[in-house]
Amino acid sequence: MTHSIAIIGASGYTGAELVRIIATHPSFEIKALAANSKAGQPMASVFPHLRHLDLPDLVTWEEIDFDQIDLCFCALPHKTSQEVISKLPKSIKIVDLSADFRLRDPAEYEKWYGNPHAAPEIQKEAVYGLTEFYREEIAGARLVAGTGCNAATGQFILRPLISAGVIDLDDIILDLQCGVSGAGRSLKENLLHAELSEGTNAYAVGGTHRHQGEFDQEFSKLAGRAVKVQFTPHLGPFNRGILATCYVKGEADAVLASLQAAYADEPFISVLPKGETPSTHHVRGSNFCHIGVSGDRIPGRAIIVAALDNLCKGSSGQAVQNANLMLGEDERAGLMLAPCFP
Amino acid sequence: MTHSIAIIGASGYTGAELVRIIATHPSFEIKALAANSKAGQPMASVFPHLRHLDLPDLVTWEEIDFDQIDLCFCALPHKTSQEVISKLPKSIKIVDLSADFRLRDPAEYEKWYGNPHAAPEIQKEAVYGLTEFYREEIAGARLVAGTGCNAATGQFILRPLISAGVIDLDDIILDLQCGVSGAGRSLKENLLHAELSEGTNAYAVGGTHRHQGEFDQEFSKLAGRAVKVQFTPHLGPFNRGILATCYVKGEADAVLASLQAAYADEPFISVLPKGETPSTHHVRGSNFCHIGVSGDRIPGRAIIVAALDNLCKGSSGQAVQNANLMLGEDERAGLMLAPCFP
Amino acid sequence: MTHSIAIIGASGYTGAELVRIIATHPSFEIKALAANSKAGQPMASVFPHLRHLDLPDLVTWEEIDFDQIDLCFCALPHKTSQEVISKLPKSIKIVDLSADFRLRDPAEYEKWYGNPHAAPEIQKEAVYGLTEFYREEIAGARLVAGTGCNAATGQFILRPLISAGVIDLDDIILDLQCGVSGAGRSLKENLLHAELSEGTNAYAVGGTHRHQGEFDQEFSKLAGRAVKVQFTPHLGPFNRGILATCYVKGEADAVLASLQAAYADEPFISVLPKGETPSTHHVRGSNFCHIGVSGDRIPGRAIIVAALDNLCKGSSGQAVQNANLMLGEDERAGLMLAPCFP
Amino acid sequence: MTHSIAIIGASGYTGAELVRIIATHPSFEIKALAANSKAGQPMASVFPHLRHLDLPDLVTWEEIDFDQIDLCFCALPHKTSQEVISKLPKSIKIVDLSADFRLRDPAEYEKWYGNPHAAPEIQKEAVYGLTEFYREEIAGARLVAGTGCNAATGQFILRPLISAGVIDLDDIILDLQCGVSGAGRSLKENLLHAELSEGTNAYAVGGTHRHQGEFDQEFSKLAGRAVKVQFTPHLGPFNRGILATCYVKGEADAVLASLQAAYADEPFISVLPKGETPSTHHVRGSNFCHIGVSGDRIPGRAIIVAALDNLCKGSSGQAVQNANLMLGEDERAGLMLAPCFP
Repeated sequence: MTHSIAIIGASGYTGAELVRIIATHPSFEIKALAANSKAGQPMASVFPHLRHLDLPDLVTWEEIDFDQIDLCFCALPHKTSQEVISKLPKSIKIVDLSADFRLRDPAEYEKWYGNPHAAPEIQKEAVYGLTEFYREEIAGARLVAGTGCNAATGQFILRPLISAGVIDLDDIILDLQCGVSGAGRSLKENLLHAELSEGTNAYAVGGTHRHQGEFDQEFSKLAGRAVKVQFTPHLGPFNRGILATCYVKGEADAVLASLQAAYADEPFISVLPKGETPSTHHVRGSNFCHIGVSGDRIPGRAIIVAALDNLCKGSSGQAVQNANLMLGEDERAGLMLAPCFP
Repeated sequence: MTHSIAIIGASGYTGAELVRIIATHPSFEIKALAANSKAGQPMASVFPHLRHLDLPDLVTWEEIDFDQIDLCFCALPHKTSQEVISKLPKSIKIVDLSADFRLRDPAEYEKWYGNPHAAPEIQKEAVYGLTEFYREEIAGARLVAGTGCNAATGQFILRPLISAGVIDLDDIILDLQCGVSGAGRSLKENLLHAELSEGTNAYAVGGTHRHQGEFDQEFSKLAGRAVKVQFTPHLGPFNRGILATCYVKGEADAVLASLQAAYADEPFISVLPKGETPSTHHVRGSNFCHIGVSGDRIPGRAIIVAALDNLCKGSSGQAVQNANLMLGEDERAGLMLAPCFP
Repeated sequence: MTHSIAIIGASGYTGAELVRIIATHPSFEIKALAANSKAGQPMASVFPHLRHLDLPDLVTWEEIDFDQIDLCFCALPHKTSQEVISKLPKSIKIVDLSADFRLRDPAEYEKWYGNPHAAPEIQKEAVYGLTEFYREEIAGARLVAGTGCNAATGQFILRPLISAGVIDLDDIILDLQCGVSGAGRSLKENLLHAELSEGTNAYAVGGTHRHQGEFDQEFSKLAGRAVKVQFTPHLGPFNRGILATCYVKGEADAVLASLQAAYADEPFISVLPKGETPSTHHVRGSNFCHIGVSGDRIPGRAIIVAALDNLCKGSSGQAVQNANLMLGEDERAGLMLAPCFP
Repeated sequence: MTHSIAIIGASGYTGAELVRIIATHPSFEIKALAANSKAGQPMASVFPHLRHLDLPDLVTWEEIDFDQIDLCFCALPHKTSQEVISKLPKSIKIVDLSADFRLRDPAEYEKWYGNPHAAPEIQKEAVYGLTEFYREEIAGARLVAGTGCNAATGQFILRPLISAGVIDLDDIILDLQCGVSGAGRSLKENLLHAELSEGTNAYAVGGTHRHQGEFDQEFSKLAGRAVKVQFTPHLGPFNRGILATCYVKGEADAVLASLQAAYADEPFISVLPKGETPSTHHVRGSNFCHIGVSGDRIPGRAIIVAALDNLCKGSSGQAVQNANLMLGEDERAGLMLAPCFP
């Protein structure tokens, strides 16, 4: 059975990545592509790498005939997303890739994003889209909120450890490098090749990155008490990829066992043999996540490193994985593309 | 119908690219992976990005049970390839990715590669594997010789122009940039990140690159007279991609018309609207080739620019395309992966 | 003797490069830095890599007290530059890095830049700033117009060949790759890391790049007849560097001899032994230019490759070289910084 | 007064960086360059970026006439270095850039490097070359052992904090990214452009990196008790630069004050205003180190980020700084080169 798909916000990188994935998806068909600022243009003029596909031209989202759409991916910036989604027909299934429906508490949303939530009633029905941990809710949901890419990576490391009670909850450090596509196709000086290539820097140091809100919400819910991690992102001179290095107090063997147990049957998450470390090179362009565990020479401390592709497993791949569940398809459909190396 | 596939030379980049493509091919199944220097190792320890696949461990090629193999890709270095292929059972279909069977004249082979050909009798049955121009012969061949990646790019530009008689055959300049994966996974100082990133240089200047032998053979055959192009490759600080900029004497409109006519029905080659120029960014990781034509301000001169991925369309993708033909499958099977951008 | 220097347009890359060079110049002292859009800010907040220097804060150019300035570098965008320079005191020596005073004929300026020249009377006194070929005029000039970075590279290759009469003037192809800093610190989509890294493309194909105006002017003057080269620039995924590959009809030995003769005593231009090719890696961050000559296998054809750093020898280094001459200093002062490799 | 300099191990990156720095040093003159595997070659054939310099050809170190040498830089691999240095005349001042004389305790050396120390008697006179903290001893030393590049970076962050007693000594995490030149000009698969560009990975996870030996030695000596930090290096896709992100338990204001006090008069180390974070982009090619301090949202925790160039301040620049002291020159001589950005 073929499902009719619309993508709103098709002129950004996550929009393009959705199209790239759906291009070889066995049962999704793209019926509408919306990007209000580029309406009227062919998709190939905005993203020439999609030239070979027979795609509808870009339209405004208001022009989409939603009667013929089964599921809509919304890849708009936060704030815009909630405004648009609140106007979409209630009969449409939606996977939102923005930050707008990730935080259940509207006050938390306002704290991290600076504006009051404009659609708090819709927020109530949103399911948090971390597939591996909300599978059942996602399958029955109308609106799924895709997670932050950094937030997904950190949770793949830490959720099993918190659930298993094998680490000290008050001493968790999550040091992370993210590729530049995580910042989107936005014209900012620090995203220019001349500024960003050939070096690296930290940003949002000290707990100010917005994905902290997701960590707080999810980890505290899981632990039944407040959990605050220390999270420092770095901007690396590469396009795709997140590498998270997590420092915990706990036994490496117990940490490893918890991760192995949690992901034994997961098609997209691999736990490496003890002492091996993953690399973003080996997941680039794919929906896979690799996790490695090492003990430190200081007893009782463990280091966990995770690698995924921020645009794919961290965003658009996750979105398709969720859409597969919502539409009753095999969760893996369209997502078994091998990483592109070198 | 599923075809059983072996890959000899699986520890190099073209070997890994074959596996990446076949991973989502609907009717190819990898039954054996050989790499004599790494025999005994799991493929995932040599190429961790293929960890998610259920692949056979690496063996020596002598260990392969060829009775169960329908087609064998041979991704060995030249010289080694002819030695191995001469020992394979004659019943096996073979796609060779090396330079060993590209040149029909053994004297030309020796001139360009420095050693006498060790299997001239097999050379006779080899078909030159430029799919778009040798489709019928390839479909009926037992042994297909994959083209050089630069040689493919130059021919996609020039064959239709030579055939149509729209350019001066004595004044053709082919200036080309190639990504570093074209040099393979070899430990050479100039391929180190510290040496190669952040700059560029020409090499094999003055007509000494080995792919000239293919240009000479193919263009002269096509023109019915000797044709010598001037060909200068450059090594660019990127992993995948060839961009060829070709300067010819001829009318841009006639050039464009010849290319449009030649590629009107080709699934993998797109001729862009006049004046547009392609980019390697937009074909990376895919089997597509984009070609653009511009006139110069000097009347009677045209510039043609072509972009493809050297590892895919220039090598392993072409090899799968040929294998599809040899095995009676849809030529496009497994090859419609969209480019990975950004 | 110390010379007091002002830099107008200090918030762009050529402005920052001027400061970098002058930082270790023995007799230049920066007295004023102007950038109207960033006036009031310390230079270190605009360019943190200059934090260690004791620099004046940014001001508007109108705020500069020109009575205390000996020489002013003007690193503004074209069009703005002519407007500002026409208002500067006539007593000030000026090195302009923009395109505004490069073309002697105002009609040519308008043809290539699209706007009528606003200061044609000042244009008359401007000297074309290609130091090695206009040394005497530059030493006596009040206003020197820095060349285009691509234009400088092409002229370093071609001027000696045209002067010596060793090449066919009607068949010159200049294929060139330029690093991204050549486009300045401007917020354009194609200059983003995610768009530009890991690939390459041609642009301004067919003779439409503005630096063609300089080639036309200079080569035609030199030859005493109209000379039109075919010039195709490419944008490469590196920050600094121009590599020009030039195809000419002429004997390689004569070409080499002409270049050797022209540059025998030049401190910044090295002609490599025959058959060696330069690399941008080996001139990065320096004022040096390396040139190599090879013959082609087709008799009577030669290929010349030149490498320089577009920001330094192609722009700000050239500007300091000219300023040294204008102020009676050793031409090499401040410019003997070794390239930064790797 | 001019000092005569020899460099042994001139064919590696730190050797080339020494030459780059000395090229504009006011009182150092290179009299001999040794590289046994490349003896007989001109330096320009090994490092073409140094072509403009009038350098002696490479010789074996045994060929150097040490009577005419004031100071010798030894840039050999560890183990080789101790063997060579033990045979050099005792009258010669030496700055060693290898790991061979960093660890005072030969047992510690053997533990971290795997071989017994071959010159323990010379080890006794070696001074640890972290200039800012061993200035007086270095000025009087005959043999100075340059520090590890990572070890220098970590110590610039932590020494003032340990001395001031403002952090918990049992809970220090040092997460670090290093550019690829830190691994030298060695032919290893993971250093190839195709393997390393466009991604990142951790290595030596869990306290196994050899620079831990330096941290243990120095921090324990400083604290008067055993101090073990958790140190995880990552390999980043850039050539030059170390970015260290350090997580401590302590008040950010006290941390900042300690750093400001320690470095108030240091010419090469800048402490940024609170909350600002450094970038390796802004120190590339220079001897400067930038350090920034931020508080975390969790009270009582601070994050310190430091950036320097591993080849310069982390190795060859530090070596020249030490040589300046040993030869009675201004410590800054030759080292005020501004960073090369972009």
